[in-house]
Amino acid sequence: MNYVYLDNAATTKPNEVALKNAIELLNNDGFYNPSALYNPSRAVKTQIEKVRLQVLKLFPNGYDLVFTSGGTEADNLAIFSFAKKGNIVTTSGEHSAVYNTFQQLKQTGIEVRFAKLNSDGSVNEEHLLSLIDEKTSFVSVVNVNNETGAINDINSIAMRVKSINKNVIFHSDGVQAFLKINQKLSQNVDLYSISAHKIGALKGTGALIYKKNLHLKAQLFGGGQEHNYRSGTENTFGIFNFGFAICENANIEQNFKNAQVLKDAFLNELQGVVQLVSSTNSSPYIVSISLVGIKAEIMQRLLADEGYLVGTGSACSSKLGTSRIISNCNLDKRVSEGVLRISFGFTTTIDEVIGCANAIKKCAERLKVIKK
Amino acid sequence: MNYVYLDNAATTKPNEVALKNAIELLNNDGFYNPSALYNPSRAVKTQIEKVRLQVLKLFPNGYDLVFTSGGTEADNLAIFSFAKKGNIVTTSGEHSAVYNTFQQLKQTGIEVRFAKLNSDGSVNEEHLLSLIDEKTSFVSVVNVNNETGAINDINSIAMRVKSINKNVIFHSDGVQAFLKINQKLSQNVDLYSISAHKIGALKGTGALIYKKNLHLKAQLFGGGQEHNYRSGTENTFGIFNFGFAICENANIEQNFKNAQVLKDAFLNELQGVVQLVSSTNSSPYIVSISLVGIKAEIMQRLLADEGYLVGTGSACSSKLGTSRIISNCNLDKRVSEGVLRISFGFTTTIDEVIGCANAIKKCAERLKVIKK
Repeated sequence: MNYVYLDNAATTKPNEVALKNAIELLNNDGFYNPSALYNPSRAVKTQIEKVRLQVLKLFPNGYDLVFTSGGTEADNLAIFSFAKKGNIVTTSGEHSAVYNTFQQLKQTGIEVRFAKLNSDGSVNEEHLLSLIDEKTSFVSVVNVNNETGAINDINSIAMRVKSINKNVIFHSDGVQAFLKINQKLSQNVDLYSISAHKIGALKGTGALIYKKNLHLKAQLFGGGQEHNYRSGTENTFGIFNFGFAICENANIEQNFKNAQVLKDAFLNELQGVVQLVSSTNSSPYIVSISLVGIKAEIMQRLLADEGYLVGTGSACSSKLGTSRIISNCNLDKRVSEGVLRISFGFTTTIDEVIGCANAIKKCAERLKVIKK
Repeated sequence: MNYVYLDNAATTKPNEVALKNAIELLNNDGFYNPSALYNPSRAVKTQIEKVRLQVLKLFPNGYDLVFTSGGTEADNLAIFSFAKKGNIVTTSGEHSAVYNTFQQLKQTGIEVRFAKLNSDGSVNEEHLLSLIDEKTSFVSVVNVNNETGAINDINSIAMRVKSINKNVIFHSDGVQAFLKINQKLSQNVDLYSISAHKIGALKGTGALIYKKNLHLKAQLFGGGQEHNYRSGTENTFGIFNFGFAICENANIEQNFKNAQVLKDAFLNELQGVVQLVSSTNSSPYIVSISLVGIKAEIMQRLLADEGYLVGTGSACSSKLGTSRIISNCNLDKRVSEGVLRISFGFTTTIDEVIGCANAIKKCAERLKVIKK
């Protein structure tokens, strides 16, 4: 069956050009081990460095990066490098790669504090700031919430956090923001995680961006790759592909505008039918809506039958029942149980989005008829 | 330049059929996030499970596996899961993914013991056994040495280790042995690491095979993938490709025989010219030779100019100078400085191997002339 894929926050379809280019490079002497000493290996190493610079170009001066196996490893590397003493603070709206790593640290005896969310999934800034004190060593705030699309202004939050305690190391999970939100990171953000498979590249590659003056604590030991911060033969194909996917989707501003058009059209079509969970100024790539009173899993299945794939919460924590993040938004139970996540990719079309909205209306109507 | 690639212990050229099949699968609805709940995602999950079973079929009953980002992560996961108390024992001939992880644990205060090597790079079993006592919690012995090809009989070693202390958890790095050595793992081996890019698949995928009754200690926290032992969206493409590469190279016995023919022909051609470092019963895929008195780096460069890519020690720890493993073989300095590693892949031909031997002779002759 040919599905319309509207769950791009979970993962994206590989960009065809980026995949083709990576395969071409692989077949053209791109398979060598970048650590070997002969010239064709050095060329592979050079290609990795090219992608590194390409990513770093999207960040201000003064940052470097470690390629990882994905966003989860990047988050874990950031947290285990610096969340070691006093208390550490994050939000209740984090992706599980941050949230569960904090929970893990809690078990080892570190004091862990979770800031509350606003109803749109953004962090309650005042509550977050109230948790920071002179003993806080590490703060992590997601840039774009992966379920509601809420944008946290991490530059401003990091500044406010550091005005309370200047020694805090500030991390942000930027997996849903990278190449989606046109923002210049401020120097108050020390660490930033990104993932390749959310922007049209393959699963298995990500990176932790870090301020050059910081010393990460390696979590993997071995051949000393990635400046000894992350041993293991580099996922060269994944890194090549990541670089090409960035090339293909580099027009952040135009892509943002396109996504905004999709979001507006989608919500316009559903006016009066659904309750919006996302705020109006959330990431246009992620729209969280509730079909109040209709369980999300049922609607998801019906929509799949109609040819539309949409999400319910994060794929990474997809269990039946309401997601942790949505629960933490403190919505009425009938609202939260009905939350669907529709997320757009760089190639999503307006027809697909309108089609999905109509399918939602059709399915909702059908369910109402059945209920009667 | 079209090189003859004889450094297959560093990495291998991707098997064309395996790559083509993986791309086909990816393009045919294989890109979905395996954790999502709709049917096409479940199909991706099913495909991962298919590869899992395919790998497990190569091991006795009673084992399971965790897919990792490669051999290094598999080694680290094994070690950090169990090497926690008393003393831990390994060999001086380990790949850096084991060796440096033990060094890391040493820094945290755990007593770490390294067994000596024989001159062919195999572990000195008696010395290893003398290091085991009632406080030993963990032992790791590489299956096939990645620089000399020496085969350690891990089934026998594990049995002997456990006859001294039955509570020891026994791990083996099988990266250079998997699909190369026709051996049935005994139940005394608790943990076994493998890597995809050494058998014609891509870098970025590996696995830790573990006895089902063991509880690993997760090193990455997040979405709970891989039975909560290894969070992070699965590298689906890498896993698909790994599965297909295993299919393509499944005839272990025939491949072993072919490699033996290559090794014999190669050494026959070089009789009297080089000193053999590998033993005669080492893995036929890895041949370690010394051009006594000629520095390996110089020979490596000359051979590259002649169109032949060969290794000096492990690519993962390739620095100028003699490798740790070769140093630990206690060879005469003029021998150890001249050690080249020639390693064959499943598609290496006899002509390539003879050509390389002739190039070595030619280069050695030239160097002698220059020296005069």
